[in-house]
Order: sequence, then structure tokens, then C-alpha cells
Amino acid sequence: MMIVLRKNCSLKEKAQITRTIENHGLAIRVTETAGRVAFIVLLPPTDEIVDALEKHAGVEEIRRTPSCQLVTRDHSPEPTQFDVGNVTVGPNSLVVIAGPCSVESPDQMLETALGVADAGASMLRGGAFKPRTSPYSFQGLGERGLELLADAGQRCGLPTITEVLAPEHADLVAQYTDVLQIGARNMQNFHLLQIVGEKNKPVLLKRSPMASIDEFLCAAEYIAAAGNSRIILCERGIRTFERATRNTLDISAVPVLKEMSHLPVFVDPSHAVGKREFVPPLAKAAVATGADGLMIEVHPNPEEALSDGRQSLTLPQFSEVMKQIQNLANLEKRDICPAERIATSRSQS
Amino acid sequence: MMIVLRKNCSLKEKAQITRTIENHGLAIRVTETAGRVAFIVLLPPTDEIVDALEKHAGVEEIRRTPSCQLVTRDHSPEPTQFDVGNVTVGPNSLVVIAGPCSVESPDQMLETALGVADAGASMLRGGAFKPRTSPYSFQGLGERGLELLADAGQRCGLPTITEVLAPEHADLVAQYTDVLQIGARNMQNFHLLQIVGEKNKPVLLKRSPMASIDEFLCAAEYIAAAGNSRIILCERGIRTFERATRNTLDISAVPVLKEMSHLPVFVDPSHAVGKREFVPPLAKAAVATGADGLMIEVHPNPEEALSDGRQSLTLPQFSEVMKQIQNLANLEKRDICPAERIATSRSQS
Amino acid sequence: MMIVLRKNCSLKEKAQITRTIENHGLAIRVTETAGRVAFIVLLPPTDEIVDALEKHAGVEEIRRTPSCQLVTRDHSPEPTQFDVGNVTVGPNSLVVIAGPCSVESPDQMLETALGVADAGASMLRGGAFKPRTSPYSFQGLGERGLELLADAGQRCGLPTITEVLAPEHADLVAQYTDVLQIGARNMQNFHLLQIVGEKNKPVLLKRSPMASIDEFLCAAEYIAAAGNSRIILCERGIRTFERATRNTLDISAVPVLKEMSHLPVFVDPSHAVGKREFVPPLAKAAVATGADGLMIEVHPNPEEALSDGRQSLTLPQFSEVMKQIQNLANLEKRDICPAERIATSRSQS
Amino acid sequence: MMIVLRKNCSLKEKAQITRTIENHGLAIRVTETAGRVAFIVLLPPTDEIVDALEKHAGVEEIRRTPSCQLVTRDHSPEPTQFDVGNVTVGPNSLVVIAGPCSVESPDQMLETALGVADAGASMLRGGAFKPRTSPYSFQGLGERGLELLADAGQRCGLPTITEVLAPEHADLVAQYTDVLQIGARNMQNFHLLQIVGEKNKPVLLKRSPMASIDEFLCAAEYIAAAGNSRIILCERGIRTFERATRNTLDISAVPVLKEMSHLPVFVDPSHAVGKREFVPPLAKAAVATGADGLMIEVHPNPEEALSDGRQSLTLPQFSEVMKQIQNLANLEKRDICPAERIATSRSQS
Repeated sequence: MMIVLRKNCSLKEKAQITRTIENHGLAIRVTETAGRVAFIVLLPPTDEIVDALEKHAGVEEIRRTPSCQLVTRDHSPEPTQFDVGNVTVGPNSLVVIAGPCSVESPDQMLETALGVADAGASMLRGGAFKPRTSPYSFQGLGERGLELLADAGQRCGLPTITEVLAPEHADLVAQYTDVLQIGARNMQNFHLLQIVGEKNKPVLLKRSPMASIDEFLCAAEYIAAAGNSRIILCERGIRTFERATRNTLDISAVPVLKEMSHLPVFVDPSHAVGKREFVPPLAKAAVATGADGLMIEVHPNPEEALSDGRQSLTLPQFSEVMKQIQNLANLEKRDICPAERIATSRSQS
Repeated sequence: MMIVLRKNCSLKEKAQITRTIENHGLAIRVTETAGRVAFIVLLPPTDEIVDALEKHAGVEEIRRTPSCQLVTRDHSPEPTQFDVGNVTVGPNSLVVIAGPCSVESPDQMLETALGVADAGASMLRGGAFKPRTSPYSFQGLGERGLELLADAGQRCGLPTITEVLAPEHADLVAQYTDVLQIGARNMQNFHLLQIVGEKNKPVLLKRSPMASIDEFLCAAEYIAAAGNSRIILCERGIRTFERATRNTLDISAVPVLKEMSHLPVFVDPSHAVGKREFVPPLAKAAVATGADGLMIEVHPNPEEALSDGRQSLTLPQFSEVMKQIQNLANLEKRDICPAERIATSRSQS
Repeated sequence: MMIVLRKNCSLKEKAQITRTIENHGLAIRVTETAGRVAFIVLLPPTDEIVDALEKHAGVEEIRRTPSCQLVTRDHSPEPTQFDVGNVTVGPNSLVVIAGPCSVESPDQMLETALGVADAGASMLRGGAFKPRTSPYSFQGLGERGLELLADAGQRCGLPTITEVLAPEHADLVAQYTDVLQIGARNMQNFHLLQIVGEKNKPVLLKRSPMASIDEFLCAAEYIAAAGNSRIILCERGIRTFERATRNTLDISAVPVLKEMSHLPVFVDPSHAVGKREFVPPLAKAAVATGADGLMIEVHPNPEEALSDGRQSLTLPQFSEVMKQIQNLANLEKRDICPAERIATSRSQS
Repeated sequence: MMIVLRKNCSLKEKAQITRTIENHGLAIRVTETAGRVAFIVLLPPTDEIVDALEKHAGVEEIRRTPSCQLVTRDHSPEPTQFDVGNVTVGPNSLVVIAGPCSVESPDQMLETALGVADAGASMLRGGAFKPRTSPYSFQGLGERGLELLADAGQRCGLPTITEVLAPEHADLVAQYTDVLQIGARNMQNFHLLQIVGEKNKPVLLKRSPMASIDEFLCAAEYIAAAGNSRIILCERGIRTFERATRNTLDISAVPVLKEMSHLPVFVDPSHAVGKREFVPPLAKAAVATGADGLMIEVHPNPEEALSDGRQSLTLPQFSEVMKQIQNLANLEKRDICPAERIATSRSQS
């Protein structure tokens, strides 16, 4: 339930409305929707509460059952923009997150970080806690992986991102990295969404391969409703009958999401297609279609990767892709962010 | 990695093999596979460990990368059977779990429990923590819901089952109910699977609407590998292009799962089809095809249900379905379990 | 467009309405819908025609854009029933069509026909023109196949069914067989649908693995609108992400179709699941869920079949399935049709 | 079966091999595969034929069961290129086919043709025979539509393309248009594929929304095996669970098809997405990912279109898209074909 207040609602009235809500045992969150102050209550309204609220002169409108609202264009017509270190996420830049599927060793991590920084990447990725279909597959290095990722990021001047798998790891991950990732398999792990929503870090939310666009936005709404509006939506392929590719990249989701939501939309072509030779054309398609960023798996030696080697680019391949997508970005006067990276990283490395 | 020991492996050798594994920093679990003692290590093997293990005379075979094994027929050729209170889950009985989608109130819960017990149901279901697509939908009564469910179950002599949504609730839920349910959206929440695997309670695992049968079995393997072998697999519809029904019941999954795995296979026709008028024919299809149990949503007044009313049977409808599936079960000399329920519950209520 | 006439519409008025329609250059077909005479025009109406028709007193209602109508329960509340030789298709019987995927030789065809007749099958199938994914696969024996099928059917007293692939073969096929089959790949070959709609033979229409239930009914409507109302709808699996089975049998389609349409609904478990060991449980599921008939592939020596051997039952397996589904049919007081078959065929063979 | 001959196979030997094949009652087609002469036989081989053929010294290799071969890169490593009037289809150009879904009237057709020619389109499309889900929807103007399309194309200097629905219309359509289109619903209408394969006109083959990439190539193989190698593959969206768009554009199919096949690959973003506002970003994605051409629906007044108005661009929108995709094509030194169109068409109109 969202209670939108009248423009001229006085402070005293606000306090009275707040008391009415709290008297019904409900928690309250204040937000702003299309320029109006609004109260969000994370439960559907009973008739009794609505009756009580409607008696307040300061209440303009009670929206009863919106499935999602904070993440929509109705709520915020302008595209969301925010900074992660020296990187600006939003409609005027192009952000490229790169790195290995899993953090494997100090050398692997540092070599990748130096390589992708040199090629102009914006951020560094690397999995420390890995969700694997089988319990007998490599599950990641855990906290040691977080350390290696943070260290490599620092040495190359790249903000970092990694996945949070379990609620109990959220604080730990937040200590080490700049962006928290929710993986595709956890897109509807609502408990985890609420927990990352309460951290003071941007969240990259991956679309589940079986989630509709509506469900994807509702998952983002869980994060937003918990108080965190710095959310990146990331399309990474949906599950279909086609098996020539790992998943089917739903490229249409980019313009559809951007029309429905003010949140930035990224694309992960690596997981979508699953074979490195097809990552470059899909990365270009994503930029041409208006994606605000990319997430690309890169490994210094893909043949020896502990996970997802088949879809990881080598460093020279990544470097080549970066040139091609910069050319595409130029057509729309966008730069891979931050523009000064290439120069800087070269002098560092 | 699974290390299968020779039949004549001595206790001393076992201890030595254990030490070799632990010296590599790995945790060990003992199991039995097709009559042989085996050690399970929850990490893929390095060449170094394999070399070390192969030197032991007591090691017969090292299985390197099975994606799942404990849940397969290779591991246990005979179908699994176990008791939940007075209910036997397994190949010789037919178990019917019934109850409302959500626990809503003491009256709703008790009326349903009495009704389904009277009709011969085996167990009582009811959601206390509800996973909802939107954060603004009814999220369940929480611990109060657990109390009401347990109370209703006790008064009608029915074991109970409810969903665990968050790791931190697992102990709480286990205190109140007889079977822990993992919902479809959490089928690949591997952290949660491990946690329920460590509890001393049977687990009903629902198939994710996006999961292949292989992935479903791998999810069950997470629970088994954590030490819990009392697992029920529950098919509840997969997501396809067809929209005449909520999901598409994958009825073929019943014989396929039963061929691949020794675990009992249940079907939830309510979530699969989403409309109450189609629940009875699908329930019958499930029994005809060899399912070991059913999970059916029942509500005394579906029109007023706080969730999933459209797919809930009324009590008279449920009673009618029970008669039809008992007829089907008779053809295979199976009884809805426990057979003495109808008589007993009638004298109680 | 459908023009429903008033009950008391005089013959003279009917003639005038007919003339109005024909003056607009449109062809007309007369039908009866829920007991009322109606005119069907196979084009959407222009405003001009509607204006002209509305002036006639005998016109009760003009239905502008029904996507399908003749095949719906609205049009005919009672289930359709018709005979094919001594076999009655409809709600009170259970029809089992059996035979090989392809007609291969006189011996193979006769041996199969004798075997399935002996087991109590209702009709004989066998493909003479085969639609194959690759142009280099066996394409069927053509007219020679039709002869062998007809001959085997006659010798065993079984009506026959085979697929029509091309418009130019429709007359030829109709000469040899009792039921014309439209295969899944041609479900939206609208030209072919119209042509078989004009023949005086019942049609079995298979659902395309990509067709929604609505599209399936619209395809049947093409046949009905061409004047042929003896149509069998046959569910044979839809295409989904799951690969453990060839297709995913949409068992829910049986009750959904029967609610929406008055046409008989059959199930082909062989093509749905693609592996013979899973055909019996799915055949039982189909009967339990209310299907009016089954189509099952049977081959005397599946290992040597020229097509689809993997999913063909042997003759003993078919015989065993027949007993099981007769038991299921008994529960609903239905008999595999015709009931006297078993006795008869035994004395013949 | 494909029989590849040795390089030094004499004419006499060729005649003998031909005779051996024909003695077995098989038809023969001569082709060239990777520079070698080969015989294609449109039936799978029996052991007997293979034995007989292997005795010939001139036979190098007998490929028994290739599902498709003529359309693969193995067969022709270089990309196929061919002309349609003054338009070159192939890897060095970008072809844009534009026009209305249906031919509706002389004015509508001419206005569209002039507009798209003026914006630089390469070819003109327009449906005369329309495949419609319901028999009561507009079915196209038939031959009158073909005349209007041909006339508009001629007046604007644009080659034309339209769909062939029925075998009996193939010659008629071939008289009027430059390219024959096989629609998505007929992709596995093998009879129709063979018939258009025998005409002396290029064929644009649309992918069925439920066809795998392998099946798509096999359908093209039917056309190629009938003797026609001027084939355009056109991706137009596959059917998935997502409903925010009409279909899901499988953008990955572009690089996958180009790797597997030498045939040109086009994309139809209009049918894929179904809403005009999303056509421009998808058209750009297609070009960025390497598609050789586009097919875009354009209507002078989409609100009044008799079919698919929702997805048709207006003429000014089409003009704007053309500029954007020309910019993208420039990055790869490709031009929308023919390059001189814009100048020419302006002086004409």
C-alpha cells in the first residue's frame, strides 16, 4: 500500500497519519513519487486501515495493490544515475564490468584485473561464493576470494562487484566490494533481496532465466522497498527450447525495461550465449539497443578456468571487443566509463 | 568426489584414508552406495588428492565429477520409504497432503483441517511464510501461522508441512512442523538446501518451474549430501508458452524421476494448473501415472482466500476427488495413507 | 462474421439476407449454433455490410470477430459423437488407434495389424507420406504405403488413419483410409486444412508443439468452417525447455479443451514422450484425465523401424497397456471401442 | 545420402555410378561440395546400395545420414552472394526490405512504396495471401494484391517479395514477384519447400517461432536439395514464456547461423517484438550483430492497417531508423544496398 500525501499536507497532519498507520501495527517508509511525498507500507491494506486513513485531510490517494511502483517510470520519470567510485552508472555513460567467473588465485585475479583495466573496463567482477547446480562442483574460495578480488581491484583502480549467495554473508561481502550482485537463481529469494536492500551498497540484480519482465521488476521492487534505490537490472538470457546457445539473450528486454523503469539496464552476453565466439556480436547488439552497461567474463587462460571457461574471453579478445563497442557508443555520444581509464591504467601497470 | 571403498577394507585402512582426505583440508561424509561404504567429499578432486587416494589399497573407485549420485537409482536401487507420524511415504502407499495456501486465522485453519481429515487426507499443509512476487502482497502470518497450523494438525491427528523461506527460520519451522517444504522459487537457493539438509526432518522439495529434471535432482542432492535422505520430490508445473493454465504440469516427470531416482515423487496439481476445475482430472492423472503422493490446496471459502483462491478446492470438492483417486489407487492395490484415517477422524470430529 | 437469425425468420427473409450477403461478393455457409440457424461468412465484416444486414428484421445478432466459434461449447453444448466404421468416437467410448509410425512392408504392416487387433485396438495407423526434418530421411512409401495400410486394416476389421501431407494427395489418401490425419507440423497450413475440410472424411488434427490451445482450436475451426464437423483434436506434446522427454505432454490440455470445445480429444503419448518405457504411464494418465482416445505407436520389431523406433511399443507391451487402460476406463463405465473387438479378432486371426 | 566423387573420377566412371544409383530406382542430383563433385540422393541409403557404390573406384566417400549439408559451411566455406534486380544480397551489403504487412489498396501500396524508396529501402514487401490464425480474419487480396505490389515496385524501382501460402499459387506468385517468401508457419511444410525449391527465384525462408536452429537449417536444405541455392534465412522471433513482446527475438541466432551456414541471414524485428516503439532498437541490434539484411513493416497509417498495425512503423519513423542503421553499417564499411538508391528515388518521386 502506498499513501500519497497532498502537496500542502502539514507536518502535524503527517505525524497524525504516521500515528494512524503505526497504531495498526504497520511499519512505514517515506519516499517520494513523481514529486509527492508518499508513505509505503509493506503489507496490503485492510478495509479498516483504508477507512481510518481516508479520514485524514492530508491523504490524497491510497494505492492499494500495485505489484511494483518504486522502480517504475511513473514513480521517477527520469533515469536513475549514481556513482560507484569513479564510475557513473546511468544513461550518459557505458559501463563495462569484466573479470573471471570465479576468483581462483592471486595471480589469475591480478593478471585479469590488469588486463581488463588496460583495455578500459569500468569495474572488476569475480565470484567468491559460487552457486553451482551440483554440490560436487567448485563452490568458490569464500572470504579468501573476496580478499583477492578487493586487492586486485585496488591495485588497478577498479571498483569491484561479487555475488551474495546467503543472507549471513551479506555484511562480509559488503565490506570487501563496491557492488553487491544477486545472481539469477536468487532473483526470487525474497529474503535475500530484502537483506541486500538494507545494505548501503548498490545492487546488480540478474534476471532469472525463467522470470518474466514483470517479475524481474517486482524483484527489484523488493530491494527498493527495503530502502535501496541504487539498483542495476541485468538481462542475462532466458531459458527457451533453443539449445544452440546456453540461454536465449532477450535483447528486447533492454528497450522494454527502459520504457517501464527508470533503473539502469545492463546485459551479460557471456552467460546468455555460453560460447566465447558469440560474446562480441551480442555485446555489440546490447550497446546498439541502448543498454547502459555490460558484464563480460574474461579469463587469462579460459581453458583452465574452474568454471565457465567456455564462455570467457581471453584478454586480447576482450581488448578487441572494447574497441568495437566504443565505436558504437560514439554514435550516441556515450563513452565507456570512466573515459580517462585507459590512460590512467596504462601508467599504473 | 565419492570414494568407494573395497568390501574388505579394514578399519585401519578406513582411518588412513580418512586422514589423507582431512590432510587436504576437506570435510568427509560417510554413506553407503549400492551396498558399499563410500566417502563423500563436497568438492571436486584435484589431481594431487586423487594421486594420494589411489595409493590406498582399500580404495576401489574414485568417482570424480558426478553431478548427483546419492539420489540416483545407481546409489540405491530400491525406492525410499519413510514415516511421518502415522503416515508412510513410499511406493506402497498414496499420500495426500491438503490444506490452504496460507494460514489465515484459527477458524479457517481448523475448519480446513477437520474437513480434509474427514475426507481422508494424510497430512495438513498451510503457509506461514509466503514468497510473493510483489513485496506488497500478503506475506503470511509468520510464527503465529506456525502455531495455528501445528494446533490444527494436532487436533485432527494430521502431520503438518510448511515452507521454509529463510535460513534463519529453519529451526523455528522445524519446531512446529513434521515436514519442511522448499518452495519452487528456492529450489536453487543452495544455501537454504544445505541448511534444511542438516535438520532432522523430512523435506519436500518443489521443482522450480524453470528447472530441468537433472537440475531438480541436483538440488535434491544438496539436501542428501548434507546428510538428510528423507526427501520428497514434488512436480508442480513448468513454465512454457501456454497460458491457458498457470503452468504446464509436466506429467512425464513422474515416470522419468522414478526411473532415475529412488526418492518418492509427489505432484501438486493446484499450482500446476491454477484453476480449481482442472485440479481433479490432473490429480487423477498423477495417481494413474504412478505418483506416490499429491499436494492439493483446499480452502473452506476460496473466494475469500488471501492467496491462490482461484486454484483452491472447496471441502466438498476435495472430498469428491478423494473418492476418485482412491478408486484409481485400488487398481494398483495402494491405499491413501493411513488407511484407518477416515474412521478415526470421523470419531474425533 | 456470423449472422444469427431470429427464430421466426421466414424463408423469404432468409433469401433476402442471403442476397444481401452475396451482393457484397461474399460466399455463405449455413450452420446451426445453439439451436439457431446462422450464416457464416469467411471474411471479417466491413461497416457497410453490417449496416446493410442490420436493416433485415430476421437478423438477430451479428458476431463480428470471433476467432473461432463452430468448434466451441457455445456453438454446440453437447459433446460431438460420430462413427468411423464400427467404431464410435465420443464421450461414452474410449478409442485406441495403434500401429507403426511408417508403413514399411506388407509383412510389417500385417503383423502389426493382427497384433493390435488381437489386443483390442479400435483403429489402425501407419504413415505413407512422412514429414521428416531432413530431406535425406525416409519419406514413406507413398501410394504403395496406402495400399498396404488399407489391406491390413481390411483383413483385421480395423478402420484406418494416415497423414495427408500435401493438398494434391488429399483425394488419394481419402480413397484408401477412413480418417485423414493432419500432422503437427501442418497444424497451421491453412490451405491444407481447408482442403481436408472439404472432403467427406473425419479428420484427426494434431496440435503443433508450438501452438497455444487457442491456436489449436482456431486451426480446427478452419476445417469446421469448410464444412466438416467430424474432427478429433489430438494433443501430442508441446515444445519446452525440458529435454528428458522428446516433448512435454500437456496433459492439462485434455480438460481445458473439453471445457472449451465439444470436439473429442485424443492423446498421442508416443510422440509426446519419445521413449517407449514412458508411454504406458502417460497413456494411463490420458485416460484418467478424461481423454476420449489414444494414438499409440506399435511396431513388431522397434529396433528395426525406419522411423521413431525408440518410442514404439512392442506388441506384447501394447497388449499389456490395453489391459491397464481398460481397467481405468471401467471406473468411468467406458469401454475401449468396439467392445466386441477382442472376441472377434481372436476368431479371425 | 551424398556420394562424393574422387577428383580424378573419369566421365565414364561417373556414368557408371549414375547407372548404379538409377538401377536402384533412385533419383539423382549433381552438386559441388567444397570443390568436389557430389551426387545427392534424396533417400537414406540401404546397405545394398552402399555395397554396390563402394565397388566403384571413383567414389571417395559416402555420407550416409547428414541431416543437412548443402546449406552448411562445410559444403561452401564462402558466404553466398546473389543479386535481386539491382540489389546484392550477401556479406558486403545491407539489404532493407520494407512495406506493409498486407497489400490493401493501390493508394496504400503506392504511398508506402514511394516512402520507403525515398528513405533508401532495398526491396518492397506486401502480403497478398495472408496466413491468419482465424479463418474469419482478413485473408489478403490474392492475385489483385500481387498486381498492386508488382506495380508499386516497378514505379519505385524496388524489387518485390511476397509470401507463397499454397503450392498451387507458387507459379502465380513467381510471375509477379522477385523473391518468394515462405512464412514462419510453413517452415516445415516440406511439400511447399520442395515446390519453391524448383522455381527459378530466390527464396526468403522465415524461421518458425518454435524451430530450433538445426531444424531451420534442415528446412533450408529442402529448398537447396530441390535445386535452389539462392536462399535467405530470416530470424523473426521465437516463442517463449515472455509476453511483454509478441515473440522473443533470438538475436544470438544471427552469429550462430552465420557460423554454421554460408547463407545470408536477415532479421525481421517487426514480427519479433510486435510493438513499433521497440522496432528501431532491435533493428539496430540486428545490424550490430552482423545481420545481412532487415525486413521491416511500414504502413502510411498504421492505425488503419488491416493486419499487424501495432507493429508497423510510420514512414517518418522508418526514415529515421534508416539513418541510424546506415550509421551502424558505416562502422563495418557496409552500405544499405543499393547505395545509389536515395539519390535515384528522390529524382523519380
